[in-house]
Amino acid sequence: MTDTPLGHHFLLDIAGAPFEVLDDLVVIETALVETAGKMGAKVLGTHLHRLLPQGISGIVVISESHLTIHTWPERGEAAIDIFSCGNPERARAALPLLAERLQAGRSKLLVITRGVDA
Amino acid sequence: MTDTPLGHHFLLDIAGAPFEVLDDLVVIETALVETAGKMGAKVLGTHLHRLLPQGISGIVVISESHLTIHTWPERGEAAIDIFSCGNPERARAALPLLAERLQAGRSKLLVITRGVDA
Repeated sequence: MTDTPLGHHFLLDIAGAPFEVLDDLVVIETALVETAGKMGAKVLGTHLHRLLPQGISGIVVISESHLTIHTWPERGEAAIDIFSCGNPERARAALPLLAERLQAGRSKLLVITRGVDA
Repeated sequence: MTDTPLGHHFLLDIAGAPFEVLDDLVVIETALVETAGKMGAKVLGTHLHRLLPQGISGIVVISESHLTIHTWPERGEAAIDIFSCGNPERARAALPLLAERLQAGRSKLLVITRGVDA
């Protein structure tokens, strides 16, 4: 038992993004992998799904961490998660570029420290 | 633009679980898929990785939602996420069985409503 956090979890919600960006699997995957790279994380796998009639659900698995995204192109919105067991400042520093790649108009960020005793 | 939430996100941290449970990929995968089933969700894919020297990182993609887990067997701890775009009560109802399957001694639950305007 320890009170060292398991990791830091960034919950980034965006709005005001273009339909065509949030509905483009290649754009989304590229943005997530680029974000992982900026975090200094090793990508173990990417798994993206195109939903019908629109929207992308995707994950990038990065060792003990992950990035996920769900997009609602018709609303211009997306929910992004970055779970980082590494240096949280590297994850935080990667967020502005990710929001820029998705052409977000607005965003909301929550940072949660994970672990029962954290 | 709307203030309807994108979804409900359950962040479940557990502690006091046995090493061998948290280090068993089959047990973890079975527990996550069972949880998805209880949520009434269609599983699109499962992607689990075994870490060295121990630990599991895994995801279950379920249409517009996902379940993820990261385990630290040496600490008896795990961080679990359920992102649900469906009925949040079904996700909430599935949590006790998941904690039981992982033989959690203690747990902490946060529920976050996702979306910039939520």
